Formats: sequence, C-alpha cells, structure tokens
Amino acid sequence: MRYRAALAYDGTGYHGFQRQANAASTIQGELEAALERICGQVVSVTGAGRTDAGVHAVGQVVAFDLAWQHTPADLQDALNANLPDDVAVMGVEAAAPGFHPRYDAVSRTYRYCLYSAPVRDPLRNRLAWHLRLAPDTELMNRAAGCLLGERDFSTFGTPPQGENPVRRVAEARWEALPGTDEQHFTITANAFLYKMVRSIVGTLVMVGQGRLSVDEFRDALAACERSRSGPAAPPHGLTLMAVNY
Amino acid sequence: MRYRAALAYDGTGYHGFQRQANAASTIQGELEAALERICGQVVSVTGAGRTDAGVHAVGQVVAFDLAWQHTPADLQDALNANLPDDVAVMGVEAAAPGFHPRYDAVSRTYRYCLYSAPVRDPLRNRLAWHLRLAPDTELMNRAAGCLLGERDFSTFGTPPQGENPVRRVAEARWEALPGTDEQHFTITANAFLYKMVRSIVGTLVMVGQGRLSVDEFRDALAACERSRSGPAAPPHGLTLMAVNY
Repeated sequence: MRYRAALAYDGTGYHGFQRQANAASTIQGELEAALERICGQVVSVTGAGRTDAGVHAVGQVVAFDLAWQHTPADLQDALNANLPDDVAVMGVEAAAPGFHPRYDAVSRTYRYCLYSAPVRDPLRNRLAWHLRLAPDTELMNRAAGCLLGERDFSTFGTPPQGENPVRRVAEARWEALPGTDEQHFTITANAFLYKMVRSIVGTLVMVGQGRLSVDEFRDALAACERSRSGPAAPPHGLTLMAVNY
Repeated sequence: MRYRAALAYDGTGYHGFQRQANAASTIQGELEAALERICGQVVSVTGAGRTDAGVHAVGQVVAFDLAWQHTPADLQDALNANLPDDVAVMGVEAAAPGFHPRYDAVSRTYRYCLYSAPVRDPLRNRLAWHLRLAPDTELMNRAAGCLLGERDFSTFGTPPQGENPVRRVAEARWEALPGTDEQHFTITANAFLYKMVRSIVGTLVMVGQGRLSVDEFRDALAACERSRSGPAAPPHGLTLMAVNY
C-alpha cells in the first residue's frame, strides 16, 4: 500500500531533507528510522522537495510503500510518537500506487522571512533572517515582478545535471507585516533550481537596500550567469510552505 | 562604573539563568564569559530573575561593575558580538552605583504561551506548550481572578528559605489570540515564588479543561499547601517579559 504524508519540521538541527551517505542527521533519515521502528522493516521515503540544511517546512509531502493493518490516522499517531519534537507528520492518507511526490507536483510555494531591528531577537533567530535596516518593500516588489513567467533562471540556481534551467514562476511578492518589523517573501513556481529561492532573496534584498537597481536586477536575470546573482540569503529564513498537485 | 543591561534569550539550550557550580551552560555564565573576553577580567553579573532551565526572556535585567572606556552602546555591540546567537543584549545604560536588579525591582511580568492543535507544530514547539484541545479561556480567567491582590501563594510555589510566601499579584489574565490557536497568560506580581507561574498555569489549564472547578481552584489557593497545586506547566512556554522599576 502506498501512503502520502504531509510533514512539518524545524530544519535547524538537520543536514537537509535528503538522507546522506555520511549518516548525518536528516529529515528523511528520521522518518525512515521512525517507520522502521513502527513496522520492523526498512522503508524508503521519497520527498517532494530536497530542502537544504537549516531550511524548514510546514508542507513537505512524502510518499512510501508500507504494509499497515490499521488506519492512516493510526499511522500518523505512531509516526509522531516515534519522531523527534522538531519533526511532525501533519497528515497521512492512502495514495495511488504510482504516486510520486516530486514528479506529480505541479508547483511548490516557499516563504522567506526576515526582520529588521538594531539587535537580533533570540526568539525569532531560528526562523527569520536578521537585518539591521529594513530593505524597501516596494523596490523589492518591482524587481520581483521581473521573475514572473517562464524563464531561464541560471543566474539564481543550478539545475540537476543535464536538466534545463527553465522554470515557471507564478507568484513572487514581498509583504511587510503591519505592526511588525517583519517582511515575508512568497514565491511559487512549478519547480526550483538548487539554491534558487535563497539566491533570489539575497539579490532582491540588495535591491531593497539600494545596492542594486531594478534595471540591474533585470539585467542579471537576463544574463543567465550564476556569477550575476547576489549572495544567497541564509537558509534559516526559508520555509517550504506547500507542494501543490 | 555600574551598568544595567536588558537581556533577551531563548532558554532552550540553557540550564537556567543562574551560574551553576557544575559548569552547566547558563545565561549568567555566557554573559560573564563574554564580559571576560571583552575586558580581560572576571566580572560578576547579577540578574533580576532566576529563570529556570528552558525558560525564555525578552526583558531580563542584569547589572555589573566594569571599567569601560567607551560608550554603553559600544559595550552593547561588543557583548552581542561575543554572545551566542540565542542570547542578545537589547540595551545597556549606566546605572546608579548601588543599583540592584532584583532588590530594586517593583514588579515582574511573565507570559505563558500555549497552542492547541491535533498535532504539535515543530516551528512553535520551542516557545509554546502544545495541547490537543483548547482549554476554556473564560473559565481560566474566572479562576485567575482569584489570584489578584496580596496573598499567601504557598500552594503554587516555594519561597527562598526563611522568607515569607506572600506576594502581590497585580495582573493575571488569559487572552485567546484572534485568528490563531494560541492562548497567552500574562501575570504581573511584585515578585514570584519558585515555580509559581508554571504551577499557576498548570492548575488554571486544569480548570480550563473542566478537571477542576473555579471553586476548587479558589479552595486550593486558600489552603496554602503545595500539594494542592496541579502539575507545573512545562518551562518552554514561559517568557520573562519585563522587570519594572
């Protein structure tokens, strides 16, 4: 029987989603270990998005095959009882036999959170990027508008070997949260290149700080050269919000 | 020269505020180590509140004597550059020579955060107590009203040896945050007994869950017996918000 599960995690303590040869702790590894404890057999889990080290998720989607005699809700409870506190299964359901969380997904949504304050806030530091001065939301949104549509995103990321670097961005906008010092960037695309969201955020923040013009941003995007990207924003501000099918 | 500093910290990784003989990591220990790195001498720090292991702060107040040639703002920057990411100095100012952060304080405010959801939320789990079902805010507030005024709080905490267990509570109320699954409890008193806030929260939640009536809560308080308290709520939901002078 094939199952599909929605996963949330605080990625701070993990070397990313994907299991690694060197036995570093990963989300996939934790989930597979929990499944093995529950059913006594080795289970291989496939994820929709390979979030990097330190990146969080509230809507990661995974799939696995399992011989399970009880309800999906029982499986969810059993998994949550066997996972560490910083990983949780938000839902489990039966899936079609051929369901593949990555290939079947039509789009993914990520959110990047930053806050601007003279001093870092230890209670938010794990989940948001700290800047001293707020970048200009309107300038960042003017530049973000250039990202919409189907384009070659080589400037902002690396495709898997042999794959093409064209992706279709459906949504890319900044929002300043009223009454707070937070700015959130939401981006939805059919898929993302490696490091694409963080590279886009880092470059858009340069625009918002007046260190790069909107025209220069557009030119960098059009150049399709990885060296034209600004530095990637740190991973801890990034959260995989949803995978859409 | 005497200095007063405001401190914020994520207490998750610490054995409380107060330095311990066994060299476990504490907030006071981190601050004293940072001061020693900055000025090359051993500096003793006094705090307003001895927060327990796992308890957080946004408004802890500390004081220390230091020979410092630069501005308080420079001292703040130097401290923040020498403290771990989960501790931050939010402000530094010169203080009167006799200033004592604990004895001079007229009141303290704590906040306890809980959220209610079928499954734990890994992104909030460090800073809030997870319950499956929301306790009744109105019932908890009726019971919390019994706490106001000057009373013997022996039911909910232990005074330092030889000290009396009477404290004056000025504010004690629950608030359900609109549009969220969070409930916050804010309590202000001239001072608190050991474990007093967490014991009060744990017992109020029993009232909110219908496991203890408001009358039984009032009777437990009046009994002045530690055994009449419900179990203490876990430390990670608690934050020292402010110390008032």
